[in-house]
Amino acid sequence: MPFITLEGIDGSGKSTISSLLQERLREKGLDFIAIREPGGTPIGEKIRDLLLDPSYSISPIEEVYLYATSRAVLVREIILPALNSGKIVISERYLDSSLAYQGYGKGVPLKFIYEVNRPAIMGLYPDLTILLDIDPLLCIERLKDKKKDRIELEGLTLQKNVRYGYLKLADFYKERYLVIDATKEPQKIVKEIIEKIERLKR
Amino acid sequence: MPFITLEGIDGSGKSTISSLLQERLREKGLDFIAIREPGGTPIGEKIRDLLLDPSYSISPIEEVYLYATSRAVLVREIILPALNSGKIVISERYLDSSLAYQGYGKGVPLKFIYEVNRPAIMGLYPDLTILLDIDPLLCIERLKDKKKDRIELEGLTLQKNVRYGYLKLADFYKERYLVIDATKEPQKIVKEIIEKIERLKR
Repeated sequence: MPFITLEGIDGSGKSTISSLLQERLREKGLDFIAIREPGGTPIGEKIRDLLLDPSYSISPIEEVYLYATSRAVLVREIILPALNSGKIVISERYLDSSLAYQGYGKGVPLKFIYEVNRPAIMGLYPDLTILLDIDPLLCIERLKDKKKDRIELEGLTLQKNVRYGYLKLADFYKERYLVIDATKEPQKIVKEIIEKIERLKR
Repeated sequence: MPFITLEGIDGSGKSTISSLLQERLREKGLDFIAIREPGGTPIGEKIRDLLLDPSYSISPIEEVYLYATSRAVLVREIILPALNSGKIVISERYLDSSLAYQGYGKGVPLKFIYEVNRPAIMGLYPDLTILLDIDPLLCIERLKDKKKDRIELEGLTLQKNVRYGYLKLADFYKERYLVIDATKEPQKIVKEIIEKIERLKR
């Protein structure tokens, strides 16, 4: 069954799209699980709290370690067992987030991020990665009324570099990327994703 | 000023020796800080809680990540600033613990542990590493009455492999290792360490 990841900068609509996608999959009677990174396991949620708490100062390298920990537990305890039992897995964020944020966004060498994460992902790459692409200026507008966490507070320059990184990744991993204009109507976005999933399953 | 690490299997007496050593340094009017790994910073203590909680299942690779995180924060926030301000730093455990436990003890490739930790330690190796060497059978006796944490519950075979690993490391890093028979009288051990530190400072 396909392993599908949703990627995009903060405020690009990953959670909204994930919820709508789950509704559609449910309507279609498809068996799936939906998760998010960091988190999704008891230890992952503790790590999520650490990462998103604005009172800690965490270096980009330390972020790489913590995301890799959360990811490793998630792959081992949740994602691989679900895929092996025939479920579709939808994850908000995965390895590409580390490459985009800590790599392109904050200057950690991509090679280091790959090396650290290699045993965490145990060879598991997504079958389909949906990039919700949007200009960070529009996202800031969307996020305006939301309580901001540490990551989201890091600002516009970071988000621009992250968006650039995602587009580079989409270009490099053409075979598994679907780049979607995130300003489109959510229902239309989800329709596009569903069509893509149905082609994947054939 | 010297950076001194205390290493050894669980129950080898690192905490006892660290306390006595601190007393002696205080008497000598030397400026120092004493820390332990994992921990020593707010985020490090949270990671310590995760690592030592027997209710989580954490793979050896995930342990490598979490120890590296705690270490990176400790080096950046505590150890380097203390050394730069002229203090002696005494740490219970450091990189060699990852090599001994996750590497020799649990089979994670040493090369991977070095690669992951390289940016965490920022080039900082100890000037002196005290290995409190002891037969694990004797340690189990010592630990018998203590509430055991997840790490300590992992048993005799692990401790034997870890001890073997430490002895290999001591052989490889001869120039910075002082191997001490941990069954000796604590006061005698501390005397030996103090003499070594005084030679280092010359």
